[in-house]
Parts: sequence; C-alpha cells; structure tokens
Amino acid sequence: MNAVTLARFALAPLALAAGLAHANEGMWMPQQLPQIAKDLKAAGLAMDPAKLNKLTEFPMGAVISLGGCTASFVSPQGLVVTNHHCAYGSIQYNSTPQRDLIKKGFLANSFEEELPAAPGSRVFVTVDVKDVSAEVLDAKVQALKGKARTDAIEAKQKSLIAACEQDKGHRCTVSAFYGSLVYQLIKQMEIRDVRLVHAPADMVGRFGGDTDNWIWPRHTGDYSFYRAYVGPDGKPADFSKDNKPYQPKHFLKLASSPLKEGDFVMVTGYPGRTSRYRLPTEVDFTFGWERPTSIKAFGEYLDLIKRETEGRRDGEIKMAGTVAGLGNAYKNWQGQQASYDGSDILARKSAAYAELKAWVNGDAKRREQYGASLDNVDRLLAERNALAKREVLLGLSLPTLLNSAAGLYEGAVQRKLPDAERKLGFQERDALRRRQGLEALDRRYDEQTDKAKTVHFLGQYLAQPAEMLNPAVLKGLGLTANMPADALKARVDALYAGSKLADKAERLAWFERSTEDFEKSSDSFIAAAVALHADTEARENRAKEIGGHIQQAYADVMKALIAFKGSKGQAVYPDANGTLRVSFGKVAGRDGADGTTWTAFTTLRGIPAKHQGKGDFDAPAEQLAAIKAGEFGKYGMKSLNSVPVNFLATLDTTGGNSGSPVLNKNAELVGLLFDGTLDAVISDWDFNEKTTRSICLDARYMQWQMKYVDRADRLLKEMQAL
Amino acid sequence: MNAVTLARFALAPLALAAGLAHANEGMWMPQQLPQIAKDLKAAGLAMDPAKLNKLTEFPMGAVISLGGCTASFVSPQGLVVTNHHCAYGSIQYNSTPQRDLIKKGFLANSFEEELPAAPGSRVFVTVDVKDVSAEVLDAKVQALKGKARTDAIEAKQKSLIAACEQDKGHRCTVSAFYGSLVYQLIKQMEIRDVRLVHAPADMVGRFGGDTDNWIWPRHTGDYSFYRAYVGPDGKPADFSKDNKPYQPKHFLKLASSPLKEGDFVMVTGYPGRTSRYRLPTEVDFTFGWERPTSIKAFGEYLDLIKRETEGRRDGEIKMAGTVAGLGNAYKNWQGQQASYDGSDILARKSAAYAELKAWVNGDAKRREQYGASLDNVDRLLAERNALAKREVLLGLSLPTLLNSAAGLYEGAVQRKLPDAERKLGFQERDALRRRQGLEALDRRYDEQTDKAKTVHFLGQYLAQPAEMLNPAVLKGLGLTANMPADALKARVDALYAGSKLADKAERLAWFERSTEDFEKSSDSFIAAAVALHADTEARENRAKEIGGHIQQAYADVMKALIAFKGSKGQAVYPDANGTLRVSFGKVAGRDGADGTTWTAFTTLRGIPAKHQGKGDFDAPAEQLAAIKAGEFGKYGMKSLNSVPVNFLATLDTTGGNSGSPVLNKNAELVGLLFDGTLDAVISDWDFNEKTTRSICLDARYMQWQMKYVDRADRLLKEMQAL
Repeated sequence: MNAVTLARFALAPLALAAGLAHANEGMWMPQQLPQIAKDLKAAGLAMDPAKLNKLTEFPMGAVISLGGCTASFVSPQGLVVTNHHCAYGSIQYNSTPQRDLIKKGFLANSFEEELPAAPGSRVFVTVDVKDVSAEVLDAKVQALKGKARTDAIEAKQKSLIAACEQDKGHRCTVSAFYGSLVYQLIKQMEIRDVRLVHAPADMVGRFGGDTDNWIWPRHTGDYSFYRAYVGPDGKPADFSKDNKPYQPKHFLKLASSPLKEGDFVMVTGYPGRTSRYRLPTEVDFTFGWERPTSIKAFGEYLDLIKRETEGRRDGEIKMAGTVAGLGNAYKNWQGQQASYDGSDILARKSAAYAELKAWVNGDAKRREQYGASLDNVDRLLAERNALAKREVLLGLSLPTLLNSAAGLYEGAVQRKLPDAERKLGFQERDALRRRQGLEALDRRYDEQTDKAKTVHFLGQYLAQPAEMLNPAVLKGLGLTANMPADALKARVDALYAGSKLADKAERLAWFERSTEDFEKSSDSFIAAAVALHADTEARENRAKEIGGHIQQAYADVMKALIAFKGSKGQAVYPDANGTLRVSFGKVAGRDGADGTTWTAFTTLRGIPAKHQGKGDFDAPAEQLAAIKAGEFGKYGMKSLNSVPVNFLATLDTTGGNSGSPVLNKNAELVGLLFDGTLDAVISDWDFNEKTTRSICLDARYMQWQMKYVDRADRLLKEMQAL
Repeated sequence: MNAVTLARFALAPLALAAGLAHANEGMWMPQQLPQIAKDLKAAGLAMDPAKLNKLTEFPMGAVISLGGCTASFVSPQGLVVTNHHCAYGSIQYNSTPQRDLIKKGFLANSFEEELPAAPGSRVFVTVDVKDVSAEVLDAKVQALKGKARTDAIEAKQKSLIAACEQDKGHRCTVSAFYGSLVYQLIKQMEIRDVRLVHAPADMVGRFGGDTDNWIWPRHTGDYSFYRAYVGPDGKPADFSKDNKPYQPKHFLKLASSPLKEGDFVMVTGYPGRTSRYRLPTEVDFTFGWERPTSIKAFGEYLDLIKRETEGRRDGEIKMAGTVAGLGNAYKNWQGQQASYDGSDILARKSAAYAELKAWVNGDAKRREQYGASLDNVDRLLAERNALAKREVLLGLSLPTLLNSAAGLYEGAVQRKLPDAERKLGFQERDALRRRQGLEALDRRYDEQTDKAKTVHFLGQYLAQPAEMLNPAVLKGLGLTANMPADALKARVDALYAGSKLADKAERLAWFERSTEDFEKSSDSFIAAAVALHADTEARENRAKEIGGHIQQAYADVMKALIAFKGSKGQAVYPDANGTLRVSFGKVAGRDGADGTTWTAFTTLRGIPAKHQGKGDFDAPAEQLAAIKAGEFGKYGMKSLNSVPVNFLATLDTTGGNSGSPVLNKNAELVGLLFDGTLDAVISDWDFNEKTTRSICLDARYMQWQMKYVDRADRLLKEMQAL
C-alpha cells in the first residue's frame, strides 16, 4: 500500500461512521467536517457545515494562531483577541517595576500608543492545507530504515517547506498525523509586527491565579488584545513606524443574541497535543516514571524561583512568564497523574491493544501486513524510554545561557552547509525567530535564579548512579559524579562568571560568528558548547536512528488501529498536533464534588465573594466598585441577575486551544476558551465524556469590564459593540 | 392587663395569621401546631397535625432531651439514637490511650457490655407543659422592681418546681418565652442511668472533623446509640446492675419508604437559643464587641490546647470534649460574624425597631402602655453591656478548680438555708448533678493546659485599663495590674501547687464540708474562693437588680412587638429557649458558591473522594473496602447509584436540635439532624429563607454502616431494621 492510499485509508472510516461514538469527543480537522455535517446540524449549528471547511472563508479565515495559543480577528483593522495568559509574555516584556503593566493592565488610546509585543510574537493565518503523505513517504523513503529514514523524511519536509515558502511572507510546516502515518503541508501567512493593544489588570485577567487554575467555579477575565500590523504594501513586514494595521478578509463579530445554557457552541483553534492513541508501553512509561519525575522537579523549580526572587520585583517580573507556564503544566500534570493513579486506564489501554493484536493475528493477511511492526514497536519504545530516562534531569540542569551558546554554535556549524541541507530550525527561514529569541532572553533571564536552578538540579543529576551520567557533559562542564556541594557551587559560579552571554549585544554578536571564532573563544559557555557538540550530535543521531524505526512501526500500528476501528464503523480523528481543529458541543454544567453540581455560568457576584484583598484573589478596587454599583448594561443575564463571567461547555480542547474563539450557532463570538478542569485533564490521554468541560470567558463579561471598569470604548466601538 | 391575659395575647396572633410569612421559618411550640395545621397539611404531612400536640402520644412521646442535645427512642427496649457528637462526652469518658473508643468506636454485643455514660448523663422525657405566666408574674410580682422583682420571680420558679417535683423521678423547669413575657412549667421524667451502646469509629462519626463542620458537601456518620435504664420498678434510678432497660410507651420506626428530594420532613427537638427578636442595642453590642472579643479568645484557647497537649494522647483525650465544643462554637460564631459584617442587619433591625416605636407613639393608649419601657430598655441594656465588658476575659481567666471551689463554697453557704430559699442550682434537687459534675471533671481536666490557659488570659486581663479590673479578684488571687509575666507565672504556679482539688476524693470531700471548714482551709483555691465570695455575691446582686428592671421593660417591648405584628396579621413563634419545638420543611438543595449548586444528597462516593488517610479525612480501611465492594443492600438509592450519606432540608433549627429525629410525612425516622451551614448560621439572629438548610444524617447511611461495616446486627434487629 503506498502512502497516498494510506492517507486516504486513514480518513476513510469517517465516511463510514453512522454517527459519533461520543457527542462531545473530537478535535476535528476542518476537512473532516463535511463528513460529520449531520451531527453538527443535529447539535444546533445554524450555518452550512461545508463553510467550516473553507479556511480562507468566514469564519475560519478569522481564526489565527499565535504559535502555542489561538486568537481571532475581531475588527476590520486587524484587532486580535486572545487570552490574557497568551499575551502575558508581551505584557511582561513591556513591564518594569516603574511601569508595571502586569499589575495595572494596559490600554492604548490610539494606534500610536500600541506597544510592540515580545520579540518573536507572531500572528499566523492558515491559508492552505495539503495532504503530502505521498511525497513525504514515497517508495524510496519507505525502503529506508533508522536514521536514513528519519533524514529522508526530514529532507522531504524541508524541500516541501522551501517550495511553499517561495511565496514570501508565509511560513510553511509539514505536520505528522496519526503517529506519522499521514503528513500535511500547512501554509500560513506570518505577520511579524504584532502589538499589544489592551490587557486588563492582572487581577482581572488572572483573577484566581494559580489557586483557581484548572478549577471551577471560575471568575477569570482571561482576555487581551493585540493588533496585527503589515507593511504599507499590505504584506507581512518587520516592525516599523510606517506599518499599517492589517485588514483581514474576515473577522468575528460579537454575538447579537445572548448565550444561554444548552446552546450549541463550537471552538476553532490550534490544540497542541493529545495522546489518546498512545500504546500501553508509552502510557506506562509516562505515568509510571516520566511524569512523576517531572512533577517533582517542576515543584522544586517553582519553589526555587519563589525563594530566589522574593522581594526582588525585577526578578519576579523576569520569571513571571516561566512561573505561569511551569505552574500551569505542573498543576495539569498533577491533575492527570491524580486521575491516572489508581485508575484502570493502563488496564483498559492494554486490553484494547490486546484486542487489536488479536484482530491482527486473527487473519493471515493482516498478520503479514502489521504483525512485524506490532511485534517490534514495544521493544523500540522501550529503547527510546531508556534513553529518555537519561535526559530528563539533564535537561533541567543546564544553564540557560549554555543552551543559548549551544544553539549559537550549532547555527554556525549549520551555516557552513547549503541552506537546504541545514537542520530543521537552523535554516535561513529560522534566523529572525532565533535572533528575536536571543533578544527577548533579556526579559526572562534572571541570573540569580538560573544559577540556583543549575546548582540544584545538577546536584541531583550528579548524585545518580554512574550509568545514568553523560561523561561528555561531565568532562565538558568540569563536573564529577557525586561532586560535593561546595565544589559544585564553585564550579557553577565559575561557569557563570566566565561568560559574557548575559549581555545582549555580546550574545547577538555570536549570531554572525564562524565556528572558528567559537572554537577559540574562552567564554565559558561558548567553550562548553563547543566541547559538548560532538556528544549532542551523537545523541541526536541515536534519536534519529531509533526515531526512524519507530516511525515505520508506529505508522503501521496506527494503520492497523484505523483499519480495526473502521471494521467496527468507528471514526478516527487524529490526535491534536498543533494544527487547526474544530470541536463542538454545548453550554452545560456537570456534577461537581459529591453533593454539589457545577452550574453552567458564574457571575459577577462570585468576584467579591472570592476577593481577599491579597494573593490570587485581589480584585481591583475599581472593579469591585463597579460590581457594587450593579450596572449590568446590555451584558446582564436576567436568569442570573448578573453579568455572566465564565461558562462551562462540552468542548473537546487542550493546551494550544487557549484563546480560541467560542462561536455560537451562527459563528458569532460568544467567548474565549481558556481552560479545562483538573479532574478532566486526563482526557488528553483517555477521554472522559462525563467530566470533560472547557472553561470559557463569557464575551459579555469582557465587554462589561471594558465598558464599566477600563473604559475601553475605543475598542468596543472598533468591534462594533458600542 | 394581667399576666394570664398577657400569655394568651402572646399566642393569639397565630390564630389570626392567614398563613406563614416564610414557609420554612419557625421553631413551633407543639401547642401552636393545631393553629398551623393547614400549612402542615399543605407541606405534605400525612398524619393528623393535632396528634403532634400531644406530648405523651406518638410521635412526640418518643422524642427526648439529653440536656443540650436531642434524641429519640428507637426500640421498645429504651434504645436511644442521637448524634455521635452528642454522645462524644460518654465515648471520651470511657476512652483511655489503651482502649481508645473515640478512635475505634464501640459496639456492645449484649446488655451487659453496655457502658455507663459520662456522669451526669440524662435522658429527659417531657411529660407535661403548662403556662404559669399568671403565677410567676402575679400582681405582687408586677409591683416589684429591680432585684426584688428578680428574687420574687426566682422564688415563684422554685416553688412551682418544688411542687412539680413532688412526683419523684421527674425534673421540672420554669422556662421564659418571648423575653420573659410568658413562663411555662415543663415537667420531664429524668432517667439517670444512661449507657453507651454503640458508636461508630471517630472517622465515621466525625468524618470531616472541624474542617467540614458547618460545611456542605458533607459525609459525616453523626450517630451513636445510648440506652435508658430504670430501676426494677420501672422508675428512674441511679446506675445499678439490677436496673432494666426502660420500656418507652412510644418509639420511632425507621422509614418504610425511601426519602427523596422534595419530600416533606419535620424535626422535633430542643433547639437551644435563637435571638431573632433581639433589640438593635443587643445586636450591636453582640456583633460589635462581645463576639469579636470571644472569637479571638476562643481561637487563642484552641491554639493553646493544641500546643499544650501535642504528643500527649492522655491530654488530648481529656481536652477532646472541650476542643469539640469550643471549636464548634468558634466556627459558628465566625460564620455569624462573617455574615453580619458588612451586612445591613443592624440597619434593618434598627428600622424595624423605629417602626415599632412609631407605631407605639402613634397612639396615646399604646404610648401609655409601652412608651416608658421602650424609653428605658435601651439604657438598661447599655448598663448591662457595660458590666458584661468587665466579665468576658475574667470568665476565661480563672482556674477551672477555682470555679469548682467557688461552687463548693457556695454550696456550703446555701446549705445553711432552708432548701426552698437556696439559690437556683444549689437546692437538694441539684446535689447529684453537681456531684457528678465534680466527679466527671477528672476526665476533662488537664492541669498543664488549664494552667497555661490561666496564665495566658490572666495576662491579657491584667493588661487592661485599671477601670476594667476587679480589685477583689486581684486581691483574692494575689495579682496586680500589669503584673510582669514571670511574676504572674510564679503566682499561678503557686496557686495550682497549693491546691489538692485536682484529686477527686479530696474534691468530693469538700462537697459535705461546712462554711467554717472552708474558711479555715489553707488550700489555695478554697481560700481564694472564700476570699472572692463577697464580691461574687455583690456582682450577682447587681446583675439581679438590673435583670429585674430589664425583665419588666423587655416583656413590655415584646408585648408591644407581638401586638404590632398581630395588627399586621403576622404570627410570632418564640425564640428558641431549650424547650420542645417542631420545625417542618422539605428535602432540598440550594445555591452553593457562585457557579455551583448543592445537591440534596451526598453519597458514599464522596467518602473515598475526600479520604486523605490523615487528619480530618481518614476513613477507616474497613469502610473504604465496603464502599469499594459496592454492596448497597436495601439502603441504596437508584437515582444516586449509591447510598445517601447526608441530606439537606429546609428545616429551621439551631444548636440543641443536634440529634433530633428527622421524620417523614408519616412520622417515620428518615435521619438525624446534626448541623447547619456556616453561611446561614446568622439565621439564629436574622432568618434567611434562601440559604438556611439543616444538614441531616440519612438513616440509610447509618444502617448501611451498621450492617456492612460495623456488623451491628443486634441493634438493627432491635430496631426491626433487619
């Protein structure tokens, strides 16, 4: 079976499916929507489902990626709405202890006052998606094994990308679906001049903080506004005073009729990663070792950051983004682990896998087609797991600037090659993003914290059994196994003191230098990066070797799984992989803790009720006064006798969906998705129909806050909401 | 208007009332029930409401008081069910570090194994209630003022009680209703031999502990069993091996049909104290000064007990009852205070009082009748408040054994008088209870904690401005204002070291001694008690003086209030005063925190969900195993797919109602009332229809636990439940 057939085969069962197994499950590729049109109609969608398939039409054309988060255009002037936590890096980037935008929020009163977003901020507008499985996995590639196969796939990807990016101002990606069984080439317009327009005060946008993160009931005003700017010619351009607001073909309009419990809603966005089809070996390794190890380390790192930045507002601001991101993952993973521990997930996954194997082995042709891969895949995954065990702590242990140095040196090494032969991430197309990353480091690098982190985790790393240690790392950094704490601290101090990379100009200067310059440098991190390079390369190659074998076997397993499910008339949407998807469901509460239920909406009343005047519950006085004044305007909901703040919906989403517009049956904007709930985050691995709910900001709360507290009339008018 | 007319007048408006103002409000005197028969029927009562008026008939005859808690007979053999927290003192009394009944629970497998309850434990069966207002407040009394009036009322009470108690084995009380406007003589059979039959493990009966106290959702198995014993002649008797189980005329039967949401329920019991008719002056003093002061002190005392008993299981057991009682009041008062602070309660109460005054002043006859009292009462209450301010800290500061000594000396003083002239509490009828109290002290007295408490609060007391200090106390205890901490500690050490009252035999010996014996004793606490006696007497007399004036004015204010409400057709049930009442309502959830609701029932599922293996959430392994086994027997509820554990009901109750049987429309037992919720405890002062719910143990959970975990088949059979 060649790749083209494979790809078709993968999508085929959807057409066969009589209906959906679970009404709320599924992050559907837009291409799949016509196939579930009946379900969408039945669920309440009022528009033609076929329209959702057209990426450059309304409404899909208004939905954009920020790379890691989702957003949408909400005005003809390129106004972008996303979550506060998605714009947090840019709010933080523009904040200083003297002008604390995090705390106070920000409102530009004119285009001129709009602030550059953090370096590297992008708006990606998906303009085309093409199945390229046949090209990526052509007959020649299919014949290759191990590293050769990985390299060949990578070469195909680079060549497809290069051809696609001939169209200037676009960024192209080749994404793998169904465990590398299917590849798609995705073409996105890349807007590089992104500016911060408005963010509410931290204790509106982040009200409840980490305490309420992943929790219901919720009262978070998780919204902020960017604006996309383009050159005078209307094409993507670097930041310039001459740039103009981008005029999107399509933008979302705020809902004209009030959202209520039971209403159809859908969400379009870029969910990052789910693992619903992972094999038992992977599930067991993840929850049996990798996650518990990472959770422990994350907790230690968060404590360490708190300790090291206490009383230093400058350090706090610099680490705020890390704390937010890490804290979020920490809580999510704890939630997943808690749901996993003591559950029957592994047993069910194992039973299902055994069923698949039995199905394959029950037929000679199937055994011939998939048998070898099914036999091999577990061994291959176990091999990869053994390698991974040596990497987790090491990854946390290395100084941030050593990683920068390693990237800079790799850049110099790759620059010697023709562009097409350079590694992914080190081609000309990556240069600007890399440079902006090096620039932005200044705003998120706190040396005191970084050094303490290195000492802490290196200490743990070096205390491991000898076979877990990487001799090249030890040699390159001048470390020894079980190094005494004093000696370790002295060595780390020397490393940090011996480098000038903390200086932005110095760091950026290395961006242009030759490998020879690196090799004769006495800068401690540059020298270490050079010393470690051969080993890093060897580890990468080992990973590529095993990766090639796994790709081959895994694709077969997925093919078998799709065929097996197809034989039972079951549809298979691919795991989330950062590409555009559509989920649909309805506004609905659920059971809470035993003896309670969660209602579909929270209201303004909950804010003063939670307010403590400190910590995560410190609502701004102006907001509390406005709530007390009780003026709801057109944003109030009679049945609640208040303004709805957040709502629950049966939408299948995950990280990356943050900022996604929530649309009603007419594709009007009713809210922004911003969270899930802790007891249901395990759905990333094992979908739970009963508990899975997305937490959404109600657009009426956003508008109420903008009108009655932040006086953002300019933006409301621009959105035609005033 | 004479007292008889007054009393009739007080109850009259009920007959006039077209219906109830709030369906769920009201702790009705049984005598009032025929007047609200229509409402009871409408609410769902299936039996004749008139039957509820007959205290010696079914079901009222089965409802008993334990003095502070309510209970009921549930078998023809005198088996009594009440709350675990009501029997806690007896469980604690029988516990030692070696035989820890608190922790493990207790189950008597035969009559012989049943254990004596804590000394002083009683079962009171109300047999008669009579309005004695005309006798207590006769023309002669009405002509008296101040202390003379107080003494005269007390003399009337003693004389009525003495006459009533001619019927041996009974205890009689004269209770004041409607702010001393109405008096009732209540006659109760007093069963003195009470035994502990069964208590579940602490972490069933007290699951959730102080964390969950006053909180929903709730999963507390708050039940225990006593048995009432009488002499071979069937009459109340002191404990004896020859005693037989009491055979009550009536006992409750477990419900034959399953309770569900919306069902009618009623509760009969002995609610302790509400303050719904208190005047603004009292409300302001209570929540503006007295409560905040007490809450602070209670918190400090609880911390102190924890610190002093840490690691001493013996001390912990001794203080456990105090911790439970104090912790309960602490949380309740904090809840009331939180609801009060920032509320408009005082403004509303003030407005209502102003309305009453306007009504009185709007009519010459009314002005003449009530005007003077309305003018006086605020001044009198302010005078009493000023006295109270000097007593609160002092009350906490005195050594427990000094209070015992004072009681013993007062006993000797009173013994010189003819019985009828002795103070209330010091008559022959009180001797046994007093003696048992002195005996039981051993089980709840921990010297280390007591001394630390005395040092702590005396230090605060002595640091007050001089005008707040009592010179007699300072002189009698050898203290000085602003005494240095070292000197205070030395003085307290000397006081404790100088007394032998911690020895039970020594303590009891003083019970018989003469005033002369006291006056020449060198025991430090006895000597201090003698030294303080004159001042205590003076303070008592001052309180009686002001009390007499207040009684007179207050009764008039209440009379005016009842007349005013009567003029608007509104019924007035009296504030709770520890006498038998009936409340009715239905099983119903309510709104929870914003974004949540409370369902009517919790289930077994909530127990493992809350279980933490430590602290307040440490469910016994046997119970967790039984829950996991999932056998619900006939106790399961299909709609819950589990056994209901606790439920919410719109029942108007308060402290003292604890242990009250919750009855269905046929007066069958469906549960035990055991708690309210923290955000509604303010209802004691200001009834809130929307939030007030009682938390009840579902009788099905009790039976499930008894059958599947504790194997209490003997008792289930006795209750005809097996």
